[in-house]
Amino acid sequence: MRVLGIDPGLTRCGLGVVDGGRSRSVTCVDVGVARTPADGQLPDRLAAVADAVERWMDTHHPEVVAIERVFSQHNVRSVMGTAQVSGVVALAAARRGLPVAFHTPSEVKAAVSGSGRADKKQVTTMVTRVLGLDAAPKPADAADALALAVCHLWRAPMASRLAEAEARAAELARAHKARLKSAQRGTGRGGGGR
Amino acid sequence: MRVLGIDPGLTRCGLGVVDGGRSRSVTCVDVGVARTPADGQLPDRLAAVADAVERWMDTHHPEVVAIERVFSQHNVRSVMGTAQVSGVVALAAARRGLPVAFHTPSEVKAAVSGSGRADKKQVTTMVTRVLGLDAAPKPADAADALALAVCHLWRAPMASRLAEAEARAAELARAHKARLKSAQRGTGRGGGGR
Repeated sequence: MRVLGIDPGLTRCGLGVVDGGRSRSVTCVDVGVARTPADGQLPDRLAAVADAVERWMDTHHPEVVAIERVFSQHNVRSVMGTAQVSGVVALAAARRGLPVAFHTPSEVKAAVSGSGRADKKQVTTMVTRVLGLDAAPKPADAADALALAVCHLWRAPMASRLAEAEARAAELARAHKARLKSAQRGTGRGGGGR
Repeated sequence: MRVLGIDPGLTRCGLGVVDGGRSRSVTCVDVGVARTPADGQLPDRLAAVADAVERWMDTHHPEVVAIERVFSQHNVRSVMGTAQVSGVVALAAARRGLPVAFHTPSEVKAAVSGSGRADKKQVTTMVTRVLGLDAAPKPADAADALALAVCHLWRAPMASRLAEAEARAAELARAHKARLKSAQRGTGRGGGGR
């Protein structure tokens, strides 16, 4: 499966394409960053990022797009821009019929480093290692985009197994309730027949 | 000038088209709301809102798009969705070469009611009155979209007059500083020639 990871941002938007095979083997297909000038108009900056993301989608044909889930704990102004970028990226994916998955920064950190509180350097080190790269991807946004894609590849099978298990449990619970109900009805009818 | 006002939202996105003539006369061209199901997938919901906004742009040919500026004081989850919608709306405008203006809720309230702290009902009442509508536009998101468009029409000339005045003041300040500098140089040279 080929995943396009996106670390959304107006000034720097990280882009990383990763192929996942069987087991946990992952390969870096491409990595980069789309930049827009800080003094540009917001709509033009959004359009520039959207154009870049769409070019990557058309070039690399990902099967799924993984986007970092934005939180608003940090700087309000930059979070709004980041949310707007994540919106135009999700739109571009939806218009191409590509599924979109959102992962939180701590899910990404945990997936690649084993700890949800790993620092940026540790994430970059692990991404460089698991993808077998000669050098660490730069800037950090590019490394984060690759980490997102790897996180998606490693979490997706787990998530779908979990969803299957939950669906099976719900089915068993439904069947059990139905049996209880019919047993009660049986008792009721039995009582009335006396 | 024709303005498309957008009150961004995922569940309900308000749309209002207003024509402004000379003086303060304003006319309602169209008003409505784009809805998406709360249980839908985020990318699909963003695409549905974007499709609706683009249909309105293609139908009504606005000259400018006025969008409510999003703040993150409120519910984090809904603010993120609102920011993402405002991003896809700004993108649609940019791709059509339409200028985009952002106005804060208090700017809108002040423009239509005279007070930045007016409540929703007061804004709806004033929008209904200034546009000469037979009935109040519903839901509130639709009325807010019209209020945004009216706000833009009434603020735009003021804003451009203000920008002109500021540019003129800056020019005068530059000229004054240049005169001071050359006067100082003149004194310095005069002293050297003594």
